Amino acid sequence: MQTLFKKVGLVARHSKPNIVVSLRALADHLARGGISVFIDRDSATPDEAGPHQLIDRADLGKVVDLAIVLGGDGTMLSIARLLAPYRVPLIGVNQGRLGFMTDIPLHEMESSIDAILAGEFVPEERILLSASVIREDAEVAQALAFNDVVFSRGAVGSMIEFEIFIDNQFVYSQRSDGLIVSTPTGSTAYSLASGGPILHPTLQAIALVPICPQSLSNRPIAVNDDCEVEFMLTRGLDARVHFDGQSHFDLMEMDRVLIRRHRNALRILHPVGYNYYDMLRHKLHWGERLL
Amino acid sequence: MQTLFKKVGLVARHSKPNIVVSLRALADHLARGGISVFIDRDSATPDEAGPHQLIDRADLGKVVDLAIVLGGDGTMLSIARLLAPYRVPLIGVNQGRLGFMTDIPLHEMESSIDAILAGEFVPEERILLSASVIREDAEVAQALAFNDVVFSRGAVGSMIEFEIFIDNQFVYSQRSDGLIVSTPTGSTAYSLASGGPILHPTLQAIALVPICPQSLSNRPIAVNDDCEVEFMLTRGLDARVHFDGQSHFDLMEMDRVLIRRHRNALRILHPVGYNYYDMLRHKLHWGERLL
Amino acid sequence: MQTLFKKVGLVARHSKPNIVVSLRALADHLARGGISVFIDRDSATPDEAGPHQLIDRADLGKVVDLAIVLGGDGTMLSIARLLAPYRVPLIGVNQGRLGFMTDIPLHEMESSIDAILAGEFVPEERILLSASVIREDAEVAQALAFNDVVFSRGAVGSMIEFEIFIDNQFVYSQRSDGLIVSTPTGSTAYSLASGGPILHPTLQAIALVPICPQSLSNRPIAVNDDCEVEFMLTRGLDARVHFDGQSHFDLMEMDRVLIRRHRNALRILHPVGYNYYDMLRHKLHWGERLL
Amino acid sequence: MQTLFKKVGLVARHSKPNIVVSLRALADHLARGGISVFIDRDSATPDEAGPHQLIDRADLGKVVDLAIVLGGDGTMLSIARLLAPYRVPLIGVNQGRLGFMTDIPLHEMESSIDAILAGEFVPEERILLSASVIREDAEVAQALAFNDVVFSRGAVGSMIEFEIFIDNQFVYSQRSDGLIVSTPTGSTAYSLASGGPILHPTLQAIALVPICPQSLSNRPIAVNDDCEVEFMLTRGLDARVHFDGQSHFDLMEMDRVLIRRHRNALRILHPVGYNYYDMLRHKLHWGERLL
Repeated sequence: MQTLFKKVGLVARHSKPNIVVSLRALADHLARGGISVFIDRDSATPDEAGPHQLIDRADLGKVVDLAIVLGGDGTMLSIARLLAPYRVPLIGVNQGRLGFMTDIPLHEMESSIDAILAGEFVPEERILLSASVIREDAEVAQALAFNDVVFSRGAVGSMIEFEIFIDNQFVYSQRSDGLIVSTPTGSTAYSLASGGPILHPTLQAIALVPICPQSLSNRPIAVNDDCEVEFMLTRGLDARVHFDGQSHFDLMEMDRVLIRRHRNALRILHPVGYNYYDMLRHKLHWGERLL
Repeated sequence: MQTLFKKVGLVARHSKPNIVVSLRALADHLARGGISVFIDRDSATPDEAGPHQLIDRADLGKVVDLAIVLGGDGTMLSIARLLAPYRVPLIGVNQGRLGFMTDIPLHEMESSIDAILAGEFVPEERILLSASVIREDAEVAQALAFNDVVFSRGAVGSMIEFEIFIDNQFVYSQRSDGLIVSTPTGSTAYSLASGGPILHPTLQAIALVPICPQSLSNRPIAVNDDCEVEFMLTRGLDARVHFDGQSHFDLMEMDRVLIRRHRNALRILHPVGYNYYDMLRHKLHWGERLL
Repeated sequence: MQTLFKKVGLVARHSKPNIVVSLRALADHLARGGISVFIDRDSATPDEAGPHQLIDRADLGKVVDLAIVLGGDGTMLSIARLLAPYRVPLIGVNQGRLGFMTDIPLHEMESSIDAILAGEFVPEERILLSASVIREDAEVAQALAFNDVVFSRGAVGSMIEFEIFIDNQFVYSQRSDGLIVSTPTGSTAYSLASGGPILHPTLQAIALVPICPQSLSNRPIAVNDDCEVEFMLTRGLDARVHFDGQSHFDLMEMDRVLIRRHRNALRILHPVGYNYYDMLRHKLHWGERLL
Repeated sequence: MQTLFKKVGLVARHSKPNIVVSLRALADHLARGGISVFIDRDSATPDEAGPHQLIDRADLGKVVDLAIVLGGDGTMLSIARLLAPYRVPLIGVNQGRLGFMTDIPLHEMESSIDAILAGEFVPEERILLSASVIREDAEVAQALAFNDVVFSRGAVGSMIEFEIFIDNQFVYSQRSDGLIVSTPTGSTAYSLASGGPILHPTLQAIALVPICPQSLSNRPIAVNDDCEVEFMLTRGLDARVHFDGQSHFDLMEMDRVLIRRHRNALRILHPVGYNYYDMLRHKLHWGERLL
């Protein structure tokens, strides 16, 4: 098999035990085609991996030319954050239920992936956010987000109060349950549940979506993704910032969080025929053609 | 006075009779600075215009280097559509109440405009939409819109049904009161009242915002402004398409309306110190700084 | 067959030609049980009605003890308005797709109706609205509504402006596309599409739901159904008031419309086992039990 | 002074030190009128209370005929929960900014209260909710709420999953940030920020308002306040139930919370001329009369 990708990494959602069988089958298939396969150490035991190399998830980006995820959108998020710094493209295989990002069904996995490896694919660039938490002029935390950076009140506390600046221009102060700063990828996740707009992936945009704002005139706003968004916590004893809902950091009053587009976009490879609107319509149960 | 602009057109909202005094004062002021002034024939009588030339509104774009509007956002919309094909920039002067686009207060008019004429200004590019109504493969109407192209049910009829395609990809069919296709400029107008997001003017985006959709999962979506949006009316005896709420065209079933970004953007000139977020915060009563 | 109901009226949605076969089958079935059957003259030809009496729809309420509708929610609305003044209860049979009010599927029609006639049913009281249009102190129109009284702008015009009073207390002035005054029955129809709350049928409430209001702080409000709601059109050249979306009346500036709960509620009879929340969950695709 | 109320309790928001001066002035004024005054021990020191009796806040309801709150809506909430079991009416005095419940301005305090004591007032009945937390068939917590019972995810966790039953009928399962069960009083508080409807205080209704639900068809629903609402947590490691945002209880999976209207309503006494819609319009910046 001729392929653009010589070294391929495989990752599975480890909470789904039976998926390891599919993972191994895919690994064997790729190896038969002359590809070096690297299996994420969290996704399979040495026994399950058989002849294939195991690799630390954190090292994937340094080694492989391409990563394939068997799982859901959640697994895609964490792998995307790991791979983006290395510009390694990503393919998503779902296990029956179409995901916003995992668009290849398991039963078509081998043929779809063969076609992609042979160069037949639709690439899609997706931005990530890079967030930096500043406390008294020092950076105390740093993280990437593929879906969203979410500021939220704690479990006990009441609403939080904060100020937003964009490119150093004051935008508003707000009292609310929190704020979602979302990429186009994240616009169909938590942001949508909070009343945010859907942003097409090609849009160079970041959405700021308030969560239950006290002021009824606070509405979602989308700004250019070359902006720097600054959040400053002015009141809130128990506030947190979350990255893709998968990690978080506790905030103190007067902490600032600076958010910028990450320098690298992540490239997702879709099978030929992929159509963003088809996926959206399917996931959101929008009306099909009538005529 | 040194100026980039030798020929300046003046337009006033004709429904406001006392504004003609301000218009004439501005004309005299500009003429004293050696500028050729052209006054829109709908904005003043020959008597009111005095020594200044009257000009048909439709000819403004061919003649002047710059147009100044004394009025509200509505007047800006109609002048913007006229000027965009000629790439003539625009300045907006309000009569006391800040507009989304008319940001110079009347009492600061002369000094603000002098500064702008001397080259001290913040330019802002704003896109327009170009819409074409197709009936049985022939174009039956064509119009520009600076805020929005709005599809709506008629007065008597019930909801309309339509299909949306973007770059020839089917997006959804919908049953609703209508659909707003909005520029970033229009995102703070009708679109906002219908639940649409605010889009920053630098965003290369068009928003599609449903009006009272029957399906609860139909949400606003923002797409790249280099897309072609196609609307096809599949059911609706009394449907219309509106352009900036200022003109409209009756639609028949199976009519298609193609919407693209107009080839020219409109340039608005703001005084130095202009800040989009300040304007937004003021207009929407968002929270001021607390600290 | 013992029955509470000796004279039963039958109505079918006339736009569905094949439904007349079901209508006739039901009529024959009821007649065999000793019930006098009256068929709506708009629902069947004399030929189709066979031995059964035809009756003007408007006379149904004077003659029958019970009416059965074969059709959708739209047919239920118009029959409800006709029957409410006579306190005649109503049964709804759908043709395959569950309606908000037509809950008996066609294939279970005979057994379900037999049980109801034998006294096994779940009655549900639903209020109607009575609206009166006042022009210069004279009533110029009057109508009932089972779902909603809707004020809306015309096809061409821009937003309308109006004032609302409840029990002669000023509530607000509003600039919007219109206003929906909804019963609990109507709360799952147009009102829901415009952001209104779902009101359980036992709630003695009327909802006022703005349609695309210009002011972002205008939110739906539910008030007691013994209130008098007064709408006064202060601006709008092309405004209309609609009753259940099935009839309308053109309004002039300064017209007032008074809305009160109709003195009679309408009684819908459901099969034993009927559950409002089951219906709602089914229609709105809410989540089923997980455990 | 003739009065219906011989024993009056006074409560002030203790976080506002200068309000104790107003409290003492009011106490002196009432005492001069022959009224026995009881001052909440948390609201003043013995020194500040001077000749007036101090009383534990929890004992107020057993002793006084009437309570007067100097503070904001937050203080009203906590006192309302304490007084409701004893049917003691409540008056609210604000310190400059109109509250949803504290409608007497400080500078009119004495004359307004004198009038109310003389029998000139507009009474308003407001319901409370009584909530009971059940763990493995035993009640493990119990609380009242005047605004709302709020179920929410914890600070770290992701969305919670739960099922709702009303009068033992299954309503829906939901995945969301939480759910607000609100009284009409609470309908202008957190519920409104989360998209809930405003419920007039005379409405015998409880609103169920989802917080950022994953399913886009989950909308607020208002049900009769004689219903029993049952919440069952099916998934969520870090969920909590909050009462008026002032106390909370940690929930475990499979915990159930039963919510019913409290047997007693709370009576708020307003000055003559009080108008709920005036208050609402003022607080929400709704449009004033134009004509």
